Amino acid sequence: MTISTIEFTSSGAVRILDQRQLPGEETYSDLASVEEVALAIETLAVRGAPLIGIAAGMGVALAIGNWKLETGGVGDVRQVVAGAIERLRATRPTAVNLNWALDRMASVAATADADSMFDVLVAEAKAIHSEDAVMCRRIGEAGAPLVNNGATMITHCNAGALATGGMGTALAPVYVAAEEGRVANVMVPETRPLLQGSRLTAWELARSGIPCTLMTDSMTASRLSQGDITCVIVGADRIAANGDVANKIGTLGLALLAKHYGVPFYVAAPSSTFDPDTATGADIPIEQRAAEEVARIGTQQVAADVPVWNPAFDVTPAELITAFISDEGMIAVDEVPGRAVRRT
Amino acid sequence: MTISTIEFTSSGAVRILDQRQLPGEETYSDLASVEEVALAIETLAVRGAPLIGIAAGMGVALAIGNWKLETGGVGDVRQVVAGAIERLRATRPTAVNLNWALDRMASVAATADADSMFDVLVAEAKAIHSEDAVMCRRIGEAGAPLVNNGATMITHCNAGALATGGMGTALAPVYVAAEEGRVANVMVPETRPLLQGSRLTAWELARSGIPCTLMTDSMTASRLSQGDITCVIVGADRIAANGDVANKIGTLGLALLAKHYGVPFYVAAPSSTFDPDTATGADIPIEQRAAEEVARIGTQQVAADVPVWNPAFDVTPAELITAFISDEGMIAVDEVPGRAVRRT
Repeated sequence: MTISTIEFTSSGAVRILDQRQLPGEETYSDLASVEEVALAIETLAVRGAPLIGIAAGMGVALAIGNWKLETGGVGDVRQVVAGAIERLRATRPTAVNLNWALDRMASVAATADADSMFDVLVAEAKAIHSEDAVMCRRIGEAGAPLVNNGATMITHCNAGALATGGMGTALAPVYVAAEEGRVANVMVPETRPLLQGSRLTAWELARSGIPCTLMTDSMTASRLSQGDITCVIVGADRIAANGDVANKIGTLGLALLAKHYGVPFYVAAPSSTFDPDTATGADIPIEQRAAEEVARIGTQQVAADVPVWNPAFDVTPAELITAFISDEGMIAVDEVPGRAVRRT
Repeated sequence: MTISTIEFTSSGAVRILDQRQLPGEETYSDLASVEEVALAIETLAVRGAPLIGIAAGMGVALAIGNWKLETGGVGDVRQVVAGAIERLRATRPTAVNLNWALDRMASVAATADADSMFDVLVAEAKAIHSEDAVMCRRIGEAGAPLVNNGATMITHCNAGALATGGMGTALAPVYVAAEEGRVANVMVPETRPLLQGSRLTAWELARSGIPCTLMTDSMTASRLSQGDITCVIVGADRIAANGDVANKIGTLGLALLAKHYGVPFYVAAPSSTFDPDTATGADIPIEQRAAEEVARIGTQQVAADVPVWNPAFDVTPAELITAFISDEGMIAVDEVPGRAVRRT
């Protein structure tokens, strides 16, 4: 399962699949400036920790392309790069892949001159993209043995192809297992408030012919209590040096419930999600998002007019995690610090 | 806090606050037949275990009123009563208050003749209603000492005034405490799929001046992990003889998470919710509802087209419950069988 979530166009724009329109419409948008890329990330037109990193990398290259077109290359190219990185870094605080990708862009920019800058940045952004696709497949291969034919598992949010430049993270083992002839049933929590489960995960699984069943987030305990769930696999937005994991709100509860019912709980993530510079989960900034995401659905106000608490992520302590499924293979929690890839 | 959720009108109809329209509109509908009452229960225009019982009781009386009007009282009055009870009993399977109220109606009908039947049934339905209001207040008084001024607690779904003929069950302690000058903050999970939390609980708390904060169901673990939640109070649709509780889907997960974080977990319910004829939670029928409730919000299709699992309730084992808050006072789990009120 690979979906073209993002690509450079021949006219020099960044073409994205606008994930806000799914599952109703498969709409592609061409982003022509850093600001458009930043807004696409902020509004979740592009989302998913790995994909945010890829989009940000492409956004930096776009800045130089536009600067050359608009000014003919007059001024300080490094300032243009730094400005683009600063804008993109401010879009979302939790996923470390964003910082990781921007640090890579800054690193290659540091040794390029104005003439080569655009080509260097485009090449690096494309490398981030293609490396992510490779990491996704490796995650899939590492995790596929966990997926038995006919087994039923639970995921959360969307850590599939739509969240990455490849076949996804949490769903990659399911896709690789399917290639190998073992098809699992995936229980998909809808993932309020933004419904990445019902809109995105259900969409991409159905498109791939993987059987899945949608439920509300509140049904996970009841489903786990039935005793036939073989494992839970989720993605991650940042993995601290001690193995604590920031991921979509609801992950913590799912991990605690899985532990209660004795169901293995795996976190699938590429190397770019491991952050050795963040000691523990308590050090991960948790993004608070607008009340309207909970109070409205689409344009429809559904809630009474009261204050809303809307953290986009929670932190799952390392001790609740059975193992990490990474592009470097299965990683035990106590192996996390050694395996983490430094950003620059 | 009392809202007129249901009443007989002078023209002999059952007037309900149509809860499907809240919080946007406060619409009252006059139900003129058993079938209309049954549909109102099935479509959740009237919902909440105690209120369903009251509505069903009123529906039986309505049947006799209409029968007298339409036929002049020709035929077998007992058959009319039995038919109404059969139709109403089939509306929803999980809440025992429905059976309890219908058994009461059947019991008084058994000793009434055709001439007195209507008056007897109206009187019994009104008694069920007014007794429920009294039970709600007693629950409130029993539970109010749990509510400290400025404390933050969590509820689930709507077990407030809108679910009853009085001031509610789970929210009654909050209302009584407020009368006594102690105002708590209530965290309100939105309660997907039908959003009874964001639509109903938030609405009635705001209307009563009780501070509350809305969150998604998936945020309860994160909120509990912050360490300042003093207790969780939920309602119940049926309490088995062993103390297992059927309540809105999501209650089981909330109870497990509360236990993990050492937060007391209370179930508030009137005597009519204790069911000595159901041995354990495994014997409680769990209503499965339509896929559209999850896949659509309002008339808007939000999910990809995949199968949906939509149980309306789950069962929380007795060992997760700190105590019951009942109209007979606080009840320990091992006191449940003795305290339960037999239906007839």
